[in-house]
Amino acid sequence: MARPRVEFLFDFGSPNAYLSHLVIPEIEKRQGVKFEYLPVLLGGVYKLTNNRSPAESLAGIKNKPQYQQIETERFIRQHGIKSFRSNPFFPVNTLMIMRGAVAAKKLGLFERYVDEVYRHMWSEPKKLDDPAILRAALLESNLPADRLFELVQTAEVKDELLAETQRAVERGTFGSPTFFVGDEIYFGKDRLRDVEEAIAGSR
Amino acid sequence: MARPRVEFLFDFGSPNAYLSHLVIPEIEKRQGVKFEYLPVLLGGVYKLTNNRSPAESLAGIKNKPQYQQIETERFIRQHGIKSFRSNPFFPVNTLMIMRGAVAAKKLGLFERYVDEVYRHMWSEPKKLDDPAILRAALLESNLPADRLFELVQTAEVKDELLAETQRAVERGTFGSPTFFVGDEIYFGKDRLRDVEEAIAGSR
Repeated sequence: MARPRVEFLFDFGSPNAYLSHLVIPEIEKRQGVKFEYLPVLLGGVYKLTNNRSPAESLAGIKNKPQYQQIETERFIRQHGIKSFRSNPFFPVNTLMIMRGAVAAKKLGLFERYVDEVYRHMWSEPKKLDDPAILRAALLESNLPADRLFELVQTAEVKDELLAETQRAVERGTFGSPTFFVGDEIYFGKDRLRDVEEAIAGSR
Repeated sequence: MARPRVEFLFDFGSPNAYLSHLVIPEIEKRQGVKFEYLPVLLGGVYKLTNNRSPAESLAGIKNKPQYQQIETERFIRQHGIKSFRSNPFFPVNTLMIMRGAVAAKKLGLFERYVDEVYRHMWSEPKKLDDPAILRAALLESNLPADRLFELVQTAEVKDELLAETQRAVERGTFGSPTFFVGDEIYFGKDRLRDVEEAIAGSR
């Protein structure tokens, strides 16, 4: 049976990407696929597309932010999510932790790094753009903080995150979370049902 | 069996409301309910909420308008819709035809008026904010154009559309299409599946 390539383009700064991250394992199990996680810098995506964060674009509009909140609560209820907490330091600059994701890939620690940094961001939320707080969080998670801090300073890691971000925009990305099933793009946590149907239909 | 109240807040100017209008009969049939159509003036909703049309808010953003187009094409394909044509005169000012919907209700012609005006707007698209073109379209549809033109000038009809629009905003509306199942609000044609599940779950 042909397995479609399924990609999840994420930035730790997006709560909707975190909520998707919590639901992806159910889909992987039901469909017998693995989502490939691609780190992209959401701030870079916004700059390259002239798009803005929901926090900015919804500001000053009546009813629309409240509706997004209703939809988020529905998603949380529907999927029985218990671990989501609003991050009181939002927006957290994610440049370091996204470069860290690229670095963790090089160290063979990518999956654990993603799970742990997501936990430190949206389950037991911390101000992860403060290097001391980030360092303590990584150490608490038994991740090699010093080695990661070294790697995120290298041109190789910086360039790789930038290149992934540029490539994402070239493929049609404008925000987070973005999914690809083969070449088909899907935007938003509310598309996960369509993503799953596309996976099921492509085999 | 308790039947939930299901409402569809629409403006003829929204192509996504038209696409919803085409799919609603399938849901009505499957679920044994009738959607109650409430005319609202989308321009009024935008003014009252400080929201903007997608055409305005997506202008200048890379990839996002193209993605909306992809989603519209998916919706059309998924529901086997054959009758949708882009209106070359878009945006058409809908004040007259939305007041006309209120007037048609008073004449007991609401359902036919809605079907026909939607057809003249998005299936055989015309410049319906031109009174002569509107008049010809109504006559072609065997609707009493002169009587409708008289009624849309009355304070009663004008005030009723304004009141419905204000009430919609008080209930949480910010755009079109908006649906209510009981007190639960849903926005966008892509929510019709959730709307249907809410109907099924509320009985």
